[in-house]
Amino acid sequence: MNSIYDAIIVGGGVIGGSIAFQLAKRGKKVLLLEKDRLASKASSAAAGMLGAQSELDVDQPLFRLATESREMFPELAEELKDTSGIDIELVNKGMFKVALTNDGAAKLKNIIKTQQAAGLEAQWLSTAEARKAEPLLSDELKGAMYIPKDGQVSATRLSLAFTKSAAALGVDIKEFVHVSDLCTKDGAVKGVVTNIGEFSCENVIVASGAWSAFLLEKLGVTLDTYPVKGECFSVLTNSPLLERTIFSDGCYLVPKVGGRIIVGATVKANTFDQKVSLEGISTLMERATQLLPAIKETELEKTWAGIRPQTGDGLPYFGEHPACNGLFIATGHYRNGILLSPITGVLMADMVEKKKKPQWSAFRLDRAIQPLFS
Amino acid sequence: MNSIYDAIIVGGGVIGGSIAFQLAKRGKKVLLLEKDRLASKASSAAAGMLGAQSELDVDQPLFRLATESREMFPELAEELKDTSGIDIELVNKGMFKVALTNDGAAKLKNIIKTQQAAGLEAQWLSTAEARKAEPLLSDELKGAMYIPKDGQVSATRLSLAFTKSAAALGVDIKEFVHVSDLCTKDGAVKGVVTNIGEFSCENVIVASGAWSAFLLEKLGVTLDTYPVKGECFSVLTNSPLLERTIFSDGCYLVPKVGGRIIVGATVKANTFDQKVSLEGISTLMERATQLLPAIKETELEKTWAGIRPQTGDGLPYFGEHPACNGLFIATGHYRNGILLSPITGVLMADMVEKKKKPQWSAFRLDRAIQPLFS
Amino acid sequence: MNSIYDAIIVGGGVIGGSIAFQLAKRGKKVLLLEKDRLASKASSAAAGMLGAQSELDVDQPLFRLATESREMFPELAEELKDTSGIDIELVNKGMFKVALTNDGAAKLKNIIKTQQAAGLEAQWLSTAEARKAEPLLSDELKGAMYIPKDGQVSATRLSLAFTKSAAALGVDIKEFVHVSDLCTKDGAVKGVVTNIGEFSCENVIVASGAWSAFLLEKLGVTLDTYPVKGECFSVLTNSPLLERTIFSDGCYLVPKVGGRIIVGATVKANTFDQKVSLEGISTLMERATQLLPAIKETELEKTWAGIRPQTGDGLPYFGEHPACNGLFIATGHYRNGILLSPITGVLMADMVEKKKKPQWSAFRLDRAIQPLFS
Amino acid sequence: MNSIYDAIIVGGGVIGGSIAFQLAKRGKKVLLLEKDRLASKASSAAAGMLGAQSELDVDQPLFRLATESREMFPELAEELKDTSGIDIELVNKGMFKVALTNDGAAKLKNIIKTQQAAGLEAQWLSTAEARKAEPLLSDELKGAMYIPKDGQVSATRLSLAFTKSAAALGVDIKEFVHVSDLCTKDGAVKGVVTNIGEFSCENVIVASGAWSAFLLEKLGVTLDTYPVKGECFSVLTNSPLLERTIFSDGCYLVPKVGGRIIVGATVKANTFDQKVSLEGISTLMERATQLLPAIKETELEKTWAGIRPQTGDGLPYFGEHPACNGLFIATGHYRNGILLSPITGVLMADMVEKKKKPQWSAFRLDRAIQPLFS
Repeated sequence: MNSIYDAIIVGGGVIGGSIAFQLAKRGKKVLLLEKDRLASKASSAAAGMLGAQSELDVDQPLFRLATESREMFPELAEELKDTSGIDIELVNKGMFKVALTNDGAAKLKNIIKTQQAAGLEAQWLSTAEARKAEPLLSDELKGAMYIPKDGQVSATRLSLAFTKSAAALGVDIKEFVHVSDLCTKDGAVKGVVTNIGEFSCENVIVASGAWSAFLLEKLGVTLDTYPVKGECFSVLTNSPLLERTIFSDGCYLVPKVGGRIIVGATVKANTFDQKVSLEGISTLMERATQLLPAIKETELEKTWAGIRPQTGDGLPYFGEHPACNGLFIATGHYRNGILLSPITGVLMADMVEKKKKPQWSAFRLDRAIQPLFS
Repeated sequence: MNSIYDAIIVGGGVIGGSIAFQLAKRGKKVLLLEKDRLASKASSAAAGMLGAQSELDVDQPLFRLATESREMFPELAEELKDTSGIDIELVNKGMFKVALTNDGAAKLKNIIKTQQAAGLEAQWLSTAEARKAEPLLSDELKGAMYIPKDGQVSATRLSLAFTKSAAALGVDIKEFVHVSDLCTKDGAVKGVVTNIGEFSCENVIVASGAWSAFLLEKLGVTLDTYPVKGECFSVLTNSPLLERTIFSDGCYLVPKVGGRIIVGATVKANTFDQKVSLEGISTLMERATQLLPAIKETELEKTWAGIRPQTGDGLPYFGEHPACNGLFIATGHYRNGILLSPITGVLMADMVEKKKKPQWSAFRLDRAIQPLFS
Repeated sequence: MNSIYDAIIVGGGVIGGSIAFQLAKRGKKVLLLEKDRLASKASSAAAGMLGAQSELDVDQPLFRLATESREMFPELAEELKDTSGIDIELVNKGMFKVALTNDGAAKLKNIIKTQQAAGLEAQWLSTAEARKAEPLLSDELKGAMYIPKDGQVSATRLSLAFTKSAAALGVDIKEFVHVSDLCTKDGAVKGVVTNIGEFSCENVIVASGAWSAFLLEKLGVTLDTYPVKGECFSVLTNSPLLERTIFSDGCYLVPKVGGRIIVGATVKANTFDQKVSLEGISTLMERATQLLPAIKETELEKTWAGIRPQTGDGLPYFGEHPACNGLFIATGHYRNGILLSPITGVLMADMVEKKKKPQWSAFRLDRAIQPLFS
Repeated sequence: MNSIYDAIIVGGGVIGGSIAFQLAKRGKKVLLLEKDRLASKASSAAAGMLGAQSELDVDQPLFRLATESREMFPELAEELKDTSGIDIELVNKGMFKVALTNDGAAKLKNIIKTQQAAGLEAQWLSTAEARKAEPLLSDELKGAMYIPKDGQVSATRLSLAFTKSAAALGVDIKEFVHVSDLCTKDGAVKGVVTNIGEFSCENVIVASGAWSAFLLEKLGVTLDTYPVKGECFSVLTNSPLLERTIFSDGCYLVPKVGGRIIVGATVKANTFDQKVSLEGISTLMERATQLLPAIKETELEKTWAGIRPQTGDGLPYFGEHPACNGLFIATGHYRNGILLSPITGVLMADMVEKKKKPQWSAFRLDRAIQPLFS
């Protein structure tokens, strides 16, 4: 007979792993189900940028979520290292969001002004100043916004650290399990149906990234989400070319430990096809060379693609289903899954524990499934 | 707007590929949809034995199907080579089904008698005779049944040859497409719903191996099928150790081109977990060494697992759904998918063309879904 | 005690394999030594073009060698398939050497005239005519030279087929063996010294490609050779984009079975570094897209590099060392190792058997090591 | 023109990397040359045990070297993390050296006594006590020696951390460079000859592991060394099976981060063949299962082999060549390369700086090459 779990999490990526970790820390009995291998999809495909200020506008609700999540990383890194032995390779050397045109420079200067007004650190650097810090940057750039706090981590190691820490705290993990349905009774979750049998639980959290829609659709929940493919490549050097992440429209370069640089990412909507196209990689190579000419000499290590969950209004969904007690959803993180994973874990654990967090109402489910209330 | 296909095949493995190839040869407009990559699951995991006489009993309906399918290979090999350029590496050097005990030897002798009575070639060899043909076989064996006609092919190349030949004949192929539902009207198929949109068609053939159940269940069709994992490994030698396939209870050795030997396969029911276990490989290694001591010195190349579709009565399902015109199913090939793929392609193409084949009624769907008729 | 070999071949690539195969056919007792794995370097990195007429000028001595070698492929393909079971995937659909400029077109027309005068098949096609045969070629090309006889093979399978056929004929093969010296007596070879001991023999053939120089230098033989790196990539499609090989200055596209296309190759002299550079791949991608715009949509499969042995005058070296009886050298095949492998095998076997072939004197060693005679 | 290096290190494994790091810290201008890729051979193949007390006898000179080196790891781990960003995954949870027989137990108890007498921490545990700490250990063991200080690291990450830290401190690194000779003048090193030209230097340190002999032999230095192959495999689990390293005769299990366990290692002398044999892996699997029955259920991740440099008397060689000033040698670390890498780096840097360390005279070169003095 199966025991009754406090929560079953569907999805073993960085979001499911973070939720499992937080619930386990609160003493919950948790089962994590993954249809493939842990962290085998978008979570491992990410470059690991923590681009709160570089990717988002200051007046977006997502901005506040992102900066709060970013602040959690230093402490989280230590906690995960202690629990799992895994170093997430957090690098806090900041980011350069560079301008390729004078227009771009003007725009960045405005963003800096807005962010400074909101109390955030950001600073304009001339091309010469930027090249003093990063001498191999192209001298044809038109300056850069320096964001000291937008760091980066190893996405693969973070995802692994979450799930392995969760396992160390007692979470049961099963891979290659396909969840096909919920068991419900009187409008409340009672368990899940899978290809290896049923499991009983009080709560189910769907955190399957771009694949969430398949299960949710089966459950009669239609969120406004769609998959977006991103292609990347990495290069290797013996001596590092960069210390800081370089971010521009259409291309970023994230310097990893050991002289590795990850270059990303293309944007192709509405496909689950994980193939890497010649055109995608070729375009990224051109853009990367424009930013950092010396990258031409580096060794091409590998190429890959990931499928990220985007939503109609660009905001993730966090919430409990209005018509089904105990069914929670956390998806739609798009390009910010790594950055948002720490706060998503805490936020969803709070929801399961019925702790209200009114400040995050922008991400509620009923903006998508309001008809259910009528 | 999408064009209307004569047939949409769901599943890009060896069975789906064979059906696509046969339908294309008959001038049908065909779309092949695969949820992952072509031939990425059981079709590539198979060892490629064509074990009609070694795996099956002469009075089983499957036996006749298997021997007929086996006879199709020589001509098929040429046809696929002409169409796709791919050599399926058909080897027709026969098989030794060996006895490890005197009881086993007696049993094999009986099988030989029965098969000879049925007009099939099979012959008893003493251990000395067997070792004359295969000098590295263990001298502790208790003789062998020699089956001249049970050959073997490269499973991966056969699967690829089917799909690439189909493509060369005009079949459209789409990978990473998830079919979530059928479109029907007045009890007849009109198309399929997928994550990249709807496609119109006259007929749908579900040929997704062990994954067929997920889609069929959604369509309200419950066949008595279940997945069975098989683990394998391969070794490499510079000089070949074997010419013929060696088959025993619990272990077979299939000599491939280039001095490669595939050793298979464990049997683990009711799991989609594609992980290779230490115990599975360790047990196979012991058994292989018992049959062919010299295999100890070979280089271990790789290990893998595949998930095969088994059925309650051990027979595959071929047929049109009784309550849904145009919905065809071909699944449940278990360990014989490679062997049965040629005849399955022809048989299903016949069905789509409404050609009756009464001799194959043992495989009809209604043995499983009879309630639908009441 | 080691037995005495008729010949020891140093190098397990396509050249060493071909020589081993020919010597074994002539009843010689042969040992093949490879410092790494068989065919692990340039032999597997090649695209497999048989570009006798596309790569060479009609009045070069190499041209005659290349065309003779090319003619050997159809019969060789059958022989290797019979002996080893391996299909070398010989494709005889010809090649288009395309012009990117009007100047280039004029040049090609001249080459055609010269080749026709020499009795070879070659034909000018307008862009429209070329696109009738290969509809996806760019319409910005300026016509093409059609060479019906310049086919292609799978380089990896050819290399493997040679060594495995040699093994089937009794050749001993040892991998990961480092030959450090020769044993000689009275100016004649008596054996080789390796890290696993000494082996006695009558003849030694050095066929280690770009690595030949290391051993030869140690033996006091300085040939005018140097390594040239070539980078390649491959793409995958479900429906083939090309039937024929497309060749232009700086880029070729070779359509392989299964919808694969190999794109090559850069040229970087004087390095053994097998790393693939971002710049190399990026440049090839641009050029390939210029020839075949539809390649942009294909899936990038992989990238790799090989190190080819070039010589000062661009001609290979075939011969017996003038001051050391029984020491033979076959190296310097540069980009034509696959194409020249059949004739090299025969030619070197002839030399070992003391059969004179005066027509190939252009490739004699003493053009490089003449001082040895003085 | 090449600049003059203070030191050129031949070999980019864990030993060469450690020496490069130490010399760079002392302000030396260093060039590191590697014939293949950095840390691509034995350094990455190691399990990373720091088995000073488990592998060695207390009265051996190597024992003192090993314990001193082991003590350096905690500080080194921080230093390498600071310099390169790479966490070497040092785990300090101790080791269980287990007894499989009563005789083995008696022997271990004696060792404990000797080590305690020498002031080292070591403790006898009954099987019940050992299983209290490691509940999945077999109950058929006969007790264990607990060594609190024998920890472990990630061998691959340590090797990478050394070379990348060296690079960060200004060391030049070149891969795929073959050193074929020394330049000397008046009995002193002046540079090295490589396939990409000559490089000038004051000192050369040969640290090429099992491959050192090839270069040294060429230089007329014959050390009494030979290669020893070791085969390993790794398994994966979601929940860790072990916390501490388990060591027995013929098999060890090293629990890595993320639920990975490395199992090693076979011992095959006098081969550079890096192939993994069926027999080697099969034997290790049996032994591992005997120690930790639950390992049967784990997923087999991969198998590999490494070639370690052993010496005639089992001791490494550290020293300057008596007849060639500036030619240093550091090789022969056998199974202790990872453990001994920190102290080897310091020791060789001291030698290059002409600092005498009389306590390490047991490792001097002249025990092997004494004839050179006569």
